[in-house]
Amino acid sequence: MPGSPDFYPSRVGATEDSLRERIDPVIHGRGSAPGPHGLSAEQLRTFEQDGFLVLPGIMADRVASLRAELDRLSTAPELQGRPEVVTEPDSDAIRSLFGVHEFSELFSAAARDSRILTPARQLLADDVYIHQSRVNAKPALLGRSFSWHSDFETWHVEDGIPRPRILTGWIFLDENRAYNGPLLVLPGSHRHYVSVAGTTPERNYLESLKVQQAGSPGIHILRKLAELCGNRIESVVGPPGTVVFHEGNLMHCSPDNPSPWSRTNLFFVYNSLQNQPVAPFSGQAPRPRYLAAPAPFEPLVP
Amino acid sequence: MPGSPDFYPSRVGATEDSLRERIDPVIHGRGSAPGPHGLSAEQLRTFEQDGFLVLPGIMADRVASLRAELDRLSTAPELQGRPEVVTEPDSDAIRSLFGVHEFSELFSAAARDSRILTPARQLLADDVYIHQSRVNAKPALLGRSFSWHSDFETWHVEDGIPRPRILTGWIFLDENRAYNGPLLVLPGSHRHYVSVAGTTPERNYLESLKVQQAGSPGIHILRKLAELCGNRIESVVGPPGTVVFHEGNLMHCSPDNPSPWSRTNLFFVYNSLQNQPVAPFSGQAPRPRYLAAPAPFEPLVP
Repeated sequence: MPGSPDFYPSRVGATEDSLRERIDPVIHGRGSAPGPHGLSAEQLRTFEQDGFLVLPGIMADRVASLRAELDRLSTAPELQGRPEVVTEPDSDAIRSLFGVHEFSELFSAAARDSRILTPARQLLADDVYIHQSRVNAKPALLGRSFSWHSDFETWHVEDGIPRPRILTGWIFLDENRAYNGPLLVLPGSHRHYVSVAGTTPERNYLESLKVQQAGSPGIHILRKLAELCGNRIESVVGPPGTVVFHEGNLMHCSPDNPSPWSRTNLFFVYNSLQNQPVAPFSGQAPRPRYLAAPAPFEPLVP
Repeated sequence: MPGSPDFYPSRVGATEDSLRERIDPVIHGRGSAPGPHGLSAEQLRTFEQDGFLVLPGIMADRVASLRAELDRLSTAPELQGRPEVVTEPDSDAIRSLFGVHEFSELFSAAARDSRILTPARQLLADDVYIHQSRVNAKPALLGRSFSWHSDFETWHVEDGIPRPRILTGWIFLDENRAYNGPLLVLPGSHRHYVSVAGTTPERNYLESLKVQQAGSPGIHILRKLAELCGNRIESVVGPPGTVVFHEGNLMHCSPDNPSPWSRTNLFFVYNSLQNQPVAPFSGQAPRPRYLAAPAPFEPLVP
């Protein structure tokens, strides 16, 4: 669908970053969710206000088997050399493994566990499908940082996701601590849209998964955004098995891991079926399927 | 004095890091200090137990003038291109400026301010002189990490400081926050000595001030040390003007600064006059005077 209206222009050649209005709501329905795993009214308010919600340890019973499966996949001969495997910028340590729900029934089942799927459906008030899945491993001492960015900005520009009706539900496979390279967020930043200067290099993802540059805002707009958010950076921490819901447009980064403890997390990007991608707003070809699921889209069922 | 006994051997060609006994006390006297700036018995206990002590904002009245002086020095024609000025590994931003108390009367006066000098003398129970002074600037977004190390290990191996009767007293010139690249410490680690594998490259300091490798322990010994310290990493934070005393042998690092806020600190390394350097235990030539003050040593007076 080329020529779709672009409500969230970014990397369209401007010389400076700018703040734009977010014209969409943060949560898309306030009805209660079926079953025991729906979020409470207070949890919905936290997500709406901060842009993320932490549920400590609720999927701890899946951690051991998911970690074992990850170990298996990391050395599986059929994965060696595949583009889904991304290494650290300055070592051979695995940084990311994409498409895990397609490689593994165990990962696929985790994505459909109602403890993560029910709240995702509730927050987006719709049937959902997986736009992207990945494991990010941040090895002790070696794991390097990710620059500040809004995921939605990338998904919009590079994948054609029209609106911020998309979120990440993720599971800690290690304890996430203040200083082992946790996600750092600007709470409340999801209520603003940062339109980033410049344009998107062709096949940007070949570099951006190691070191993101296009789409990462400069210091002036970051200071302005931080000020709007009370100059507060928060780390997202908790024990293994913690589940986090993180609104697609939340400004976040993650620092190096200088600690002697590794930090591995499993991410599922859930998109509303009413928010199916159009042609990328960068005007470029869509990214490969392990980064951006192509049609047809089937609703996930628990 | 070549041939001095080496009570803290490190980088002596071992193939593995090892833990060794610290044979010296942490604080060297328990007498009260003269005047209003002596530390209390409780503060002495904190320093002895944790290896550091934080006095929030006590020198706030000096911050504005020190910052202005630093701005002046950063662009002073007489400093351009001098080895005292160290830039970031991947940009031209100033990372460190050494020898500031020799360039500037204002910095020299700060080192003799009784709010920092009196506790330093009290903790070391002796007259002291400045082994090294420096400003470490960690620019917003760009400031890069320092690996784990014990300062004393470097001063011992590369400068011939015989015993851990040496400490750093430092002053925050910016707010130090959890996520703008603060010092990270392993509280209690100063009570163990990590003897590091390998040897010291010739003129190591030309690289080590940007990226330290020799003297930085490996992950196995760091995990062991962390375990001995309750697996707790702590950040040293506070408002501008905070003074910190940090025992020479405390294991610490400092992570990247991914925040939009710069973090600049001023460090004075105070050494006991009874702990004067001998020939470096590496067997190499002493480092330049801006890194390791040479004799004669004059006691600092307020």
